[in-house]
Amino acid sequence: MIRIAIDAMGGDFGPEPIIEGLILAIRNNNNFTALAVGDKDILSKLIPTTFLNRIEIIDTKDVISMNDHATDALKRKESTIYKAIELVREGKADAVVSAGHSGATMSLATLRIGRIKGVSRPAIATLMPTSENQNTLVLDVGANVDSDAKNLFEFAVMGQAYAQTVLRLDEPIVGLLSNGEEESKGNEVTKEAYKLISKIPNFAGNVEGNDIFKGTVDVVVCDGFVGNILLKTAEGVADTISKIMKKDLKRSLIAITGAVLMRKVFKNLKVKVDYAEYGGAPLLGVKAPVIISHGKSNPKAIKNAIFQSLLSASSNLEDIIEKRLAKYSAKEESNCETTATTL
Amino acid sequence: MIRIAIDAMGGDFGPEPIIEGLILAIRNNNNFTALAVGDKDILSKLIPTTFLNRIEIIDTKDVISMNDHATDALKRKESTIYKAIELVREGKADAVVSAGHSGATMSLATLRIGRIKGVSRPAIATLMPTSENQNTLVLDVGANVDSDAKNLFEFAVMGQAYAQTVLRLDEPIVGLLSNGEEESKGNEVTKEAYKLISKIPNFAGNVEGNDIFKGTVDVVVCDGFVGNILLKTAEGVADTISKIMKKDLKRSLIAITGAVLMRKVFKNLKVKVDYAEYGGAPLLGVKAPVIISHGKSNPKAIKNAIFQSLLSASSNLEDIIEKRLAKYSAKEESNCETTATTL
Repeated sequence: MIRIAIDAMGGDFGPEPIIEGLILAIRNNNNFTALAVGDKDILSKLIPTTFLNRIEIIDTKDVISMNDHATDALKRKESTIYKAIELVREGKADAVVSAGHSGATMSLATLRIGRIKGVSRPAIATLMPTSENQNTLVLDVGANVDSDAKNLFEFAVMGQAYAQTVLRLDEPIVGLLSNGEEESKGNEVTKEAYKLISKIPNFAGNVEGNDIFKGTVDVVVCDGFVGNILLKTAEGVADTISKIMKKDLKRSLIAITGAVLMRKVFKNLKVKVDYAEYGGAPLLGVKAPVIISHGKSNPKAIKNAIFQSLLSASSNLEDIIEKRLAKYSAKEESNCETTATTL
Repeated sequence: MIRIAIDAMGGDFGPEPIIEGLILAIRNNNNFTALAVGDKDILSKLIPTTFLNRIEIIDTKDVISMNDHATDALKRKESTIYKAIELVREGKADAVVSAGHSGATMSLATLRIGRIKGVSRPAIATLMPTSENQNTLVLDVGANVDSDAKNLFEFAVMGQAYAQTVLRLDEPIVGLLSNGEEESKGNEVTKEAYKLISKIPNFAGNVEGNDIFKGTVDVVVCDGFVGNILLKTAEGVADTISKIMKKDLKRSLIAITGAVLMRKVFKNLKVKVDYAEYGGAPLLGVKAPVIISHGKSNPKAIKNAIFQSLLSASSNLEDIIEKRLAKYSAKEESNCETTATTL
């Protein structure tokens, strides 16, 4: 049985949608038990007694709020996210799911669970919808700013390993996000990263912003500053299109009738672009699966985040990342030796 | 009479849409004459003789194609874009419009027309639609990668001046694109740029990717690498939403009927997100108006680009940019002197 630690209080809407999502997950999957970290008085009222054989409540009252600084998280040892992370560190849980303060989750996971050997900086990966029957994994979408070429190289290795072992893609193709497809395009950091990433199999070279939504490649690598901006831009465009249409709709009864007839199309579109369908964003590069969920997660999003953590926990992702990074860095050293000998 | 030089051969679809756009512009505006640079044999067949009192053909046959390197542009002195730029340099034209090789246009404009005093790097600005009755000017969207804090500061000054003098906004608000709103957010370069831009009036601080489409501010400043990615991301999201819906539509006659009833809404949306409505992208920071149009420009886009160049040519944009940059740099120096005296 896989054991999932859940920060049951961290989301924007309190414990209700999180517990509801957890119960949905339990109903649909028999292979795990949960450690729900939060206020016992509150949680025990939300969890029907029939589920108590699958959910253990870990009682604690402090919650890191969205307004707190991520740096405070390390000192607040009684907080739900601190305790959830500690359960993994102590081997009492196999993975963590949190819809709480993402900066706090990231710092605690990195410092308390620790980085995989060879990883300089963990990265947050997220799935983006495409017009085809597939999604694109983009990383980093916000864990790091000012990533250097080596960081981007590690993101490429971690993203490819995740696509292979957790998303079960056969030979995931990796692209490097740039301002043009040609090898000559890019800024100083991506040009250097291009050379490093060329060492890994199935590297497609540079890709552009629109390639993410075309599904040109399976994994897109970028710096977290750029990744955050592209994520927010994508959200902004989708919201704006919907707003412009709604405004216009209100002006015409004919158009409203049309929208009613088209409701299935709109519903399918919503499903396709709804982050709740994708669960949460894995923090790649730490020694155990950590899933960072949206603060506004509904029960479906939490359910999917739990399923995602189960897939990760039953894979050998961390091993594969460690081995591949070791292999590539050995190659680099032996290349250096060859060069040295030649000289 | 304002004189506009037009690279009549540079677009992806040859001279037809460009001459058609030029004629549309002439029909709607009596205040300019055009210098159409291109193959006289071809152009004279496309231009009805009744328009020859407003259009002078400057005969030359060489065209820089999209596959040529921007660096070649400087050597090919008989090319349409080289000659169009030279017309401005020699004072025979007041502004340039080109749908040709944007890299070539940029290099030639920067090197042959020259930068405004105080500008380190010219930047490309573009208008993005919002859900409100306004647009957002974003710069730089591709002229520069690895911009430093001083470059971003100059983009802020140039963008604000353009919004004021050409877009006729009263007190344009400027935002700095970052990965969060708080002053503490950003990468090394944007954090330093934040301090510099704080010196100009109506600076709203950091803005995020979605703010561009909400219309939170009038001018958004970013590095060209990031600007290119956000532009392509926005295009990609809009295309993907349309593709997903079209695919779904095909499966249901009811939905198709709905789409027919909604066609006005879709048409309005298309107008709102169609770049042809916005004309071209001004290259800010050179001594004369240079409008870079999309290679795939249709006649409407060319017409609007010409109108845009007319607005710029009849403004005192270049003067204002020079004066403001001089004022801010004087302030900086006097601040330094004060500090030195205090010490």
